[in-house]
Amino acid sequence: MTLTGHSLIAGQPVVGSGRTAFGFNPATNESLEPAYTLITEDQLTTATSAAAAAYPSFSALDPETHAGFLEAIAGNIEAIGDELIIRAGQETGLPAARLQGERARTTGQLRLFANVVRQGDFRGVRIDPALPERTPLPRADIRQRQIPLGPVAVFGASNFPLAFSTAGGDTASALAAGCPVVFKAHNAHPGTSELVGQAIVQAVKDAGLHPGVFSLIYGPGASIGQALVADPAIKAVGFTGSQNAGIALMRTAAARPEPIPVYAEMSSLNPVFVFDGALKGDVDALAQQYVTAVTGSSGQLCTSPGLLFAPEGELGDKLAAAVGRAVSACAGQTMLTEGIAGSWNAGAEALGSADGVTVVGQGTQGPTKNAPAPTIFGTGVKEFVANHVLHQEIFGAASLVIRYGSVQDLIAATNRLEGQLTASLQLTEEDFPTAAQLLPALEQKVGRIIVNGWPTGVEVGHAMVHGGPFPATSDTRTTSVGTLAINRFLRPVAYQNLPQELLPAALRDTNPWQLNRRIDGTVEAAADAKDKVNA
Amino acid sequence: MTLTGHSLIAGQPVVGSGRTAFGFNPATNESLEPAYTLITEDQLTTATSAAAAAYPSFSALDPETHAGFLEAIAGNIEAIGDELIIRAGQETGLPAARLQGERARTTGQLRLFANVVRQGDFRGVRIDPALPERTPLPRADIRQRQIPLGPVAVFGASNFPLAFSTAGGDTASALAAGCPVVFKAHNAHPGTSELVGQAIVQAVKDAGLHPGVFSLIYGPGASIGQALVADPAIKAVGFTGSQNAGIALMRTAAARPEPIPVYAEMSSLNPVFVFDGALKGDVDALAQQYVTAVTGSSGQLCTSPGLLFAPEGELGDKLAAAVGRAVSACAGQTMLTEGIAGSWNAGAEALGSADGVTVVGQGTQGPTKNAPAPTIFGTGVKEFVANHVLHQEIFGAASLVIRYGSVQDLIAATNRLEGQLTASLQLTEEDFPTAAQLLPALEQKVGRIIVNGWPTGVEVGHAMVHGGPFPATSDTRTTSVGTLAINRFLRPVAYQNLPQELLPAALRDTNPWQLNRRIDGTVEAAADAKDKVNA
Repeated sequence: MTLTGHSLIAGQPVVGSGRTAFGFNPATNESLEPAYTLITEDQLTTATSAAAAAYPSFSALDPETHAGFLEAIAGNIEAIGDELIIRAGQETGLPAARLQGERARTTGQLRLFANVVRQGDFRGVRIDPALPERTPLPRADIRQRQIPLGPVAVFGASNFPLAFSTAGGDTASALAAGCPVVFKAHNAHPGTSELVGQAIVQAVKDAGLHPGVFSLIYGPGASIGQALVADPAIKAVGFTGSQNAGIALMRTAAARPEPIPVYAEMSSLNPVFVFDGALKGDVDALAQQYVTAVTGSSGQLCTSPGLLFAPEGELGDKLAAAVGRAVSACAGQTMLTEGIAGSWNAGAEALGSADGVTVVGQGTQGPTKNAPAPTIFGTGVKEFVANHVLHQEIFGAASLVIRYGSVQDLIAATNRLEGQLTASLQLTEEDFPTAAQLLPALEQKVGRIIVNGWPTGVEVGHAMVHGGPFPATSDTRTTSVGTLAINRFLRPVAYQNLPQELLPAALRDTNPWQLNRRIDGTVEAAADAKDKVNA
Repeated sequence: MTLTGHSLIAGQPVVGSGRTAFGFNPATNESLEPAYTLITEDQLTTATSAAAAAYPSFSALDPETHAGFLEAIAGNIEAIGDELIIRAGQETGLPAARLQGERARTTGQLRLFANVVRQGDFRGVRIDPALPERTPLPRADIRQRQIPLGPVAVFGASNFPLAFSTAGGDTASALAAGCPVVFKAHNAHPGTSELVGQAIVQAVKDAGLHPGVFSLIYGPGASIGQALVADPAIKAVGFTGSQNAGIALMRTAAARPEPIPVYAEMSSLNPVFVFDGALKGDVDALAQQYVTAVTGSSGQLCTSPGLLFAPEGELGDKLAAAVGRAVSACAGQTMLTEGIAGSWNAGAEALGSADGVTVVGQGTQGPTKNAPAPTIFGTGVKEFVANHVLHQEIFGAASLVIRYGSVQDLIAATNRLEGQLTASLQLTEEDFPTAAQLLPALEQKVGRIIVNGWPTGVEVGHAMVHGGPFPATSDTRTTSVGTLAINRFLRPVAYQNLPQELLPAALRDTNPWQLNRRIDGTVEAAADAKDKVNA
């Protein structure tokens, strides 16, 4: 494919009237061609008004065309071939194997949502049939469905140039809900964004959809982002990135004449709690798994474990020593951008110089300037509870081992934590009673609890929750990964006493989309329900 | 029952340290005994910390105890007997028949939620079983459930002293979700609030629950309300009332260190669209129904129709004349408070003096000072589209008839509307094609669409939506009436690879609560699903 260097607005390349910017190779510190032209706020409305114009037809699309469209995006992304992996590698420093895995996750995610669209439970059909004989008052026929909110603004994340970017989870779930998407590319991977954007634009054309269903824009970071969220045509926002940027978008959305929901996934320390029983087994293996989770993808994962609670005493000492050995064998990997590497250095410096914080172990600087040495710090639970500096996320390959005395220490530390995406427990059967004491406190702080595993490797399925209380996310009622993510872009509408001719397809007696329906409070499968509604 | 005149905090009467206030009879303009002592912000934390302390046990309650508790509240409210109807009548001016109906709705709502708790679908159980043989990576066992958000602050509405007050829809759905409630009584009906509050407190005691499950507080209106929403123990807010007050609570909630969701139901014009076909039948009956919907409960309903679009020309003239006759036969009814009657007068004055607005018909002043004459105003669609003053809700028995030329006029007027709770269509089969053109625009503006009915009389069922885009509500993704309202107080948590001993009851293989569960994306009824999970 040829990279145009321009935004793709409603199917057309649009030359930005602002300045230009380049992709950047963090391994070589070199700019990447072509130059990308950045749009201005004036040009933004072309994209948002096209999205609004696409809404009526796209939101009413039949399930088969809709699902086929999502599958076509997946196919088009695969058809780009190695070019996508190469460009993404140049722009992010991430190794090819990791990017191939991420591509598979991205296309798998689109196909999963295609199945969700075909299956149709997200339409939330509820029917309370009329009760004309009821006393003292008859009941009207009332039917409910979930409709798409409207055009959605999606912001790409730096650390997943495919799975949380142009055709990532937010875009996939918004399109599956029936919402047109205006996607703001992350400036760290403009070429990768354009390749995937072209794949989506082609799928829009091939399916015969309104071109406003998808636009990809390049613009000056914060200002165009704020303008996008403030645009009256936009009805919801998906974002993955820093806490500062996420909170700024939340404030803008709340201050609009019509406030809109923002789904921002922002930061997480992902604490790991190691219990005594887990240390009576292979401690070296446990330490190695921890260090692998901390250093994989240079630690640039939302779910990288930033805290590990280990018991005081001999067993914990053994673990700390093993962790020190394991991390000292690790070399730094090139980070996504020079800015991110700089922030890592500043964060590690602040943590390392905090009172009562030691270095448990440190690896070696990697092959490039932006590949700092992975570092594991250590401290005591009292220091951790007392000092909020020790609660700051360091995005990258750093983590803090906290030594604790009792489960009461763990509960106290948990109660001091802000909201997190995950918590993990390393334990054996002897630890069940202790873990059971900690679990209620953890549930109040996280979106996912893991036993004898590590938080990295977020499964894209039906039961996954990739969310959590603020500030892990802006909206604890939601997940940004997994099929439940579609619910973020829907709202209920009730139809009272509408004749069949005026009802939307999803609610008609004939049930043309073969949907499961909640009839008078009980879900009935498509085939079973039909008779009751038609009776 | 003896009214104490004090807050009921965690089961105990608490004498407020602030000033005192009295209930007030709007029909006689007389104060009602006893004096109510108002709490201070210092005293507030007694209630919120008790609610936080009640959360661990209440949120994990078994379904049968939980449902029985909700049913006991309903029974205790009925057991108060006529005392409740009499006191509510004194405090609101509402007639006994209306209050009896409202009581039945309140207790019916509690029993409906008891069924929801027993049935259990709101727990949102999703299970993706482990796939140890999957390549390239095995899948862990992942299970999801919805857990209650935490303590909820609920604000009583002035216009429904029972159904949207102490044990109303917000309280019922929050308690059903497993959230303790701190209820701020509306100062317009303190005695009614206490009677119902005592009924809840008794049910808490009889069920052996933690007393912090419910507190009823009296406090100085805005200040204690803001403090309650800002309290860190509170995790969500339910509110029904004015736009100004609702937006103030939204701002406070968004500015917290941990922002929380606010479910505010605020204002609605509830437009009615009359098509030609509907005017070829009994126009007098149609006019009478409209006037009844406008004047019932003195128009003090969220769903009172504030706008009626009637065609220009002879048919529309006939309707306007019939409306004028019908309303002129109506006497005013005493409004809820002197302040509300005063606001009605100011609003009617502003509308009546706007350019191009006429009076279609007016009734007579009622038997008391606070019973203004019901009034129907008239204007043209051009005036309506051009002048935002004509879009202001007048809470009470007033409405505006707007004459239109074509369906394009209706679409243009709809596009100019802010978000509304409802829209209603009066039509016959000949109007279907015209109505079909209008429906997509309406769906973007309202939460419920009604054909050949009136928006008043909100059914409490599974399919009802009592919500809508801002500013009808603060959160268009939700409803405050009907069983879907429970979703407002829940959030998802995933459990990865937890041993059976550590899983919550709702997620165990043995399925002790006999819940329907979504297994690998497909909902299976309790009995069917058991084998698959246990396989």
